[in-house]
Amino acid sequence: MRGRCGASCHDHGLALMTHHRSQSAADTGGAFQDHYPDDVAHCFGCGRLNPHGHQLKSYWEGEETVARFTPQPYHTAIPGYVYGGLIASLIDCHGTGTAAAVAARRDGIEPGAEEGTAPFPRFVTAALEVSYLAPTPLGPALELRGKVVQDSERKVTTEVTVSAKGEITARGRVVAVRMPEHMAGR
Amino acid sequence: MRGRCGASCHDHGLALMTHHRSQSAADTGGAFQDHYPDDVAHCFGCGRLNPHGHQLKSYWEGEETVARFTPQPYHTAIPGYVYGGLIASLIDCHGTGTAAAVAARRDGIEPGAEEGTAPFPRFVTAALEVSYLAPTPLGPALELRGKVVQDSERKVTTEVTVSAKGEITARGRVVAVRMPEHMAGR
Repeated sequence: MRGRCGASCHDHGLALMTHHRSQSAADTGGAFQDHYPDDVAHCFGCGRLNPHGHQLKSYWEGEETVARFTPQPYHTAIPGYVYGGLIASLIDCHGTGTAAAVAARRDGIEPGAEEGTAPFPRFVTAALEVSYLAPTPLGPALELRGKVVQDSERKVTTEVTVSAKGEITARGRVVAVRMPEHMAGR
Repeated sequence: MRGRCGASCHDHGLALMTHHRSQSAADTGGAFQDHYPDDVAHCFGCGRLNPHGHQLKSYWEGEETVARFTPQPYHTAIPGYVYGGLIASLIDCHGTGTAAAVAARRDGIEPGAEEGTAPFPRFVTAALEVSYLAPTPLGPALELRGKVVQDSERKVTTEVTVSAKGEITARGRVVAVRMPEHMAGR
């Protein structure tokens, strides 16, 4: 099955255990990023095949998308607060993941049942904006929530909030475009 | 001496050797980030006291600021290209570093000679925008160049380009504000 986490998950080790634990709460077809085709599943932010990366996992939750991520102690900016570059990175990957999920839904690609259908789409970032509204405390899990505000065949724009302990600390906007096939050497 | 890389550099190990080698080309007082006071020098993107982080180093070069960074092989998005979240992170830290350097210059704080003067200032990000103009090839060193476009006591806005092999692949804009003292627990 294309892009599924099956037996090969053992290869990823501990990093994916968190994913498996958190998956039950919000899973409606699995994490978007787990359906990226193998040749484009290495993103440092969200690729399941990048053991060095963050392995962010995004899911549908009604008409919103959600991801949760707990920063490491060294993901700091000023001590006690989360590094803004990490926040930008998570917003970025949640936005491109949301774009892919929206396109998959539009194209009739059911996550987890790609056999015989087109592969799960892959989007890349054209533009990213982040407003840091308040310092984000380092420690608690962060919750990212995405809402699609523009959606066309080629381009999807998602607004994303980042919250810690229920307080929104950052807002982002991701303009994602369908990955040109030549980027993947196809 | 506050925030200088002296004997303590031995503690940082290999990561700082690169910094020391590259310093000669563009150094006019050392990297901005090496002058951050010790209690706010842990940023994952640029803090000299964060051994897990990127340790980005930014310097004056005329009226522009410049930083160079070579991504690791795992800092990928689509294989062969640099992860956009890393690009955003580097722009972020180069922008806040530039803001601090501008404020230091305005306040008469000479990098490397802070003894008896106010500490080197520290700025944090209020807003970050990145336009990804072209895929950034993974492999060559990236060059970041910053130009200050707005400068006040509290807020500095910097426009940053990212280039690889002489081609600009991303443009960013960082609105940085002076760090509130309470963030550092002062």
